[in-house]
Amino acid sequence: MPPSSPDGLTRNAGIREVARRAGVSIATVSRVFNAHSTVQQGTRERVLEEARAVGYSPSPLGRNLVRGRSDLLGVILPNTGFPLYGAVLRGIEDTIQASGMSVLLASSRDDAQIEVQAAQHLLRHAVDASIVVNSRAGRNLPTDRDLAYVHIAPEDPAVPHRVELDNVRGGELAAVELLAGGARCPAFVGAPGRESAERERGFVTSMEEAGRRVRRVPGDYSEDSGLRAGMALPADVDAVFVAGDLMAAGVLRALHQQGRRVPTDVAIVGFDDSLIAPLLYPRLSSVRQLAYDMGVAAAQLALGLIAGEPGPDVVITPELVRRESSIRVPSPRPP
Amino acid sequence: MPPSSPDGLTRNAGIREVARRAGVSIATVSRVFNAHSTVQQGTRERVLEEARAVGYSPSPLGRNLVRGRSDLLGVILPNTGFPLYGAVLRGIEDTIQASGMSVLLASSRDDAQIEVQAAQHLLRHAVDASIVVNSRAGRNLPTDRDLAYVHIAPEDPAVPHRVELDNVRGGELAAVELLAGGARCPAFVGAPGRESAERERGFVTSMEEAGRRVRRVPGDYSEDSGLRAGMALPADVDAVFVAGDLMAAGVLRALHQQGRRVPTDVAIVGFDDSLIAPLLYPRLSSVRQLAYDMGVAAAQLALGLIAGEPGPDVVITPELVRRESSIRVPSPRPP
Repeated sequence: MPPSSPDGLTRNAGIREVARRAGVSIATVSRVFNAHSTVQQGTRERVLEEARAVGYSPSPLGRNLVRGRSDLLGVILPNTGFPLYGAVLRGIEDTIQASGMSVLLASSRDDAQIEVQAAQHLLRHAVDASIVVNSRAGRNLPTDRDLAYVHIAPEDPAVPHRVELDNVRGGELAAVELLAGGARCPAFVGAPGRESAERERGFVTSMEEAGRRVRRVPGDYSEDSGLRAGMALPADVDAVFVAGDLMAAGVLRALHQQGRRVPTDVAIVGFDDSLIAPLLYPRLSSVRQLAYDMGVAAAQLALGLIAGEPGPDVVITPELVRRESSIRVPSPRPP
Repeated sequence: MPPSSPDGLTRNAGIREVARRAGVSIATVSRVFNAHSTVQQGTRERVLEEARAVGYSPSPLGRNLVRGRSDLLGVILPNTGFPLYGAVLRGIEDTIQASGMSVLLASSRDDAQIEVQAAQHLLRHAVDASIVVNSRAGRNLPTDRDLAYVHIAPEDPAVPHRVELDNVRGGELAAVELLAGGARCPAFVGAPGRESAERERGFVTSMEEAGRRVRRVPGDYSEDSGLRAGMALPADVDAVFVAGDLMAAGVLRALHQQGRRVPTDVAIVGFDDSLIAPLLYPRLSSVRQLAYDMGVAAAQLALGLIAGEPGPDVVITPELVRRESSIRVPSPRPP
C-alpha cells in the first residue's frame, strides 16, 4: 500500500490516538503491532487495550501479527478434483466457518516430495495448523513453532492427531451385505496400500467365518483396472466386493460386456460411496467413507490444537449404503 | 509468537544489524516493516535494501506487509464437492504455483448473500485478487483498494474480467453430432439460467437449419430431474441433448427403465464432460467444458491484474467428446 494512500492516512490518525491514550510514542505502538520483542509486556498490553478501545488495527495482516495467528488453516489434498476430497473440504469449511478461519489449499499429487513442498508453502503463509489427507510424507512434514498437522487416513498409521476410517469394519459390512444376498463364491478386487489391505482383511475374515473362500483379483483404484479385474473374474463368482467405487464402475462395465446380470448373476458392493455410486447402472451399493464427517472431525481436532486443547484421535465407523447392485433375493441352495 | 521465543531472538539480532547498516534506529526499521507512512521514502528504501542484504524479515506476515501483497489468491466456488469445480481449482493451482501464491478457498453455496460474505472474508485476509465461479452477486461483490475479481461464467454477462465458455457453440456441436447419427426427432433437456439458454439456442438453431423441430423438456441439472425428463420424452424422440451430465445420467436411467436402447433407439449427448460422463452406461458423449482450461485462463487474468497488466476477457471454445451414447450408424430415411 503506498504511504500516501487515503487508507494510510486513516490508519495514521488511529495510531496517533492509540499512542496518546496509552501514553507512549507512535513508534512504540508500531513496534507492538509488528510483534517485536523490544516492547515491555505491560506497555504492550496497554497499547493493545487502547487499540481495541478505538478499534485501531494497522491492516488485516498486521492484526493477525498481533494475535500471533493468521486464521489460516492449511489443507493438503492428494488431488483437488476427486469427489471424495471435495466432501472432506466441505466438512472442514462448515466446521471452521464460525471461527472466522479460512482454508488455504495445497495439493500433494500423491507424492511425498510435493507434499513436503506444499507443507513448506503453507508454513510460509503462517497457517495456524494444517490438515493433510492421505499423507505419504507423514513424520517428515516440515514444522516450525508448535505447528500441528492433523492427518486424515495417513499412510503411516502411527503419526499423531489422526482421523481414520475403520476400514476393517467396512470390509465386514460388505461381507454381511453380500452374504445376506446369498453369496456363495465371493471375490475381492483390491488395490495397493494400507486401506485396501484393511478392507480385504475385514471382508475375508467375515466370509471365512461363513465358510466362504474369497478369490482375490488385483486392481489399482482406476476404472480401467476394474474393467480388467471384472474380465478376469472366475465364471462361478456370484458376489464381488470392490475396494473403490471408480474401480467398481469398471467391474460393472465388464459384467455388462459379458452379459452377466447385476445383481441377479453377480451382486456388487463398492467402497467410498462417492457421488458416482448412485449414478452407475445399476445404482451401486457402497461402503460409505463419511468423508464429510472425516473433514468435520479433522477440523475439530485442528481447532483444538490451535486453542492448545488437543483432542484424541478419531475413528469413524463406516456405513453400508444399500442400492440396486446388491439387493438380491437369495436363491435356494442347490441340492 | 511469544517475545521470548528463540525465533524472536534471532529476529532481533537481524533487526539490529539492519538498523546499524542503514544508519537508523531499530524503531525506524520496525516502522518500515509495519508499512507505516511515518518513514521517509529514502529511509524506507535504504532500510529495505539493507534488510534484503542481510536476509532479514520479521515474519512471513510482516514480509507480506512490506511487499503490500499477501500472495493469497481468493477462490469462491459454488460448491467444493462438484467435480467440475475441482478441475477449475486444479487449473488455478497449476497456474499460480510458479508465482509462489496460494489459493484461499471459500464457498458461495450458490447464494448471492453467502457469496458476498465469502468475499468479505477473503478481503479480511488481504487476498491480492479473487476468482469467482458462477457469481450471482456480480457487481455487488465488496471491494477495497484496487482489489480485482476475475469471473468464470458469472450470471451477469457484463461484469469485467471474465472467462466464459462459448455455450452457443457447445449447443451447435451437440446438434452436429446427433445429426451425423441420423437424428430426426431431437429433444433438448434444459435447466434455468443463462448457460442452459445459450446451449439451447445453439442446439435449436442448428437443428432448425437442418429442418428438425426440437422438443423442449425442462429440468434443473439434478439427476432426478433428468430421470423425470427422460420419462416424459415423447415416444418418437430419437436424439437428446441434455444441458448437464448429471441430468443426462437421469435421462439414461429413464431410457434403460423404458427398455429404449442407447444409442440404437435414442442417441444422447450431455454437457460438461465431468468425470462422471465416461463412467455412465453406455459411456456418455458430452460437450467438454474445459474446466481446467478455464481455471488456467482465470488464474492468468488474475496474475495479470495483480501485476497491473489486465488482460482481455477470455472465451473458451468447447469440444465434443464422442463416446458410445451417440455413436450410431444413421439408418436410411423411410420412403
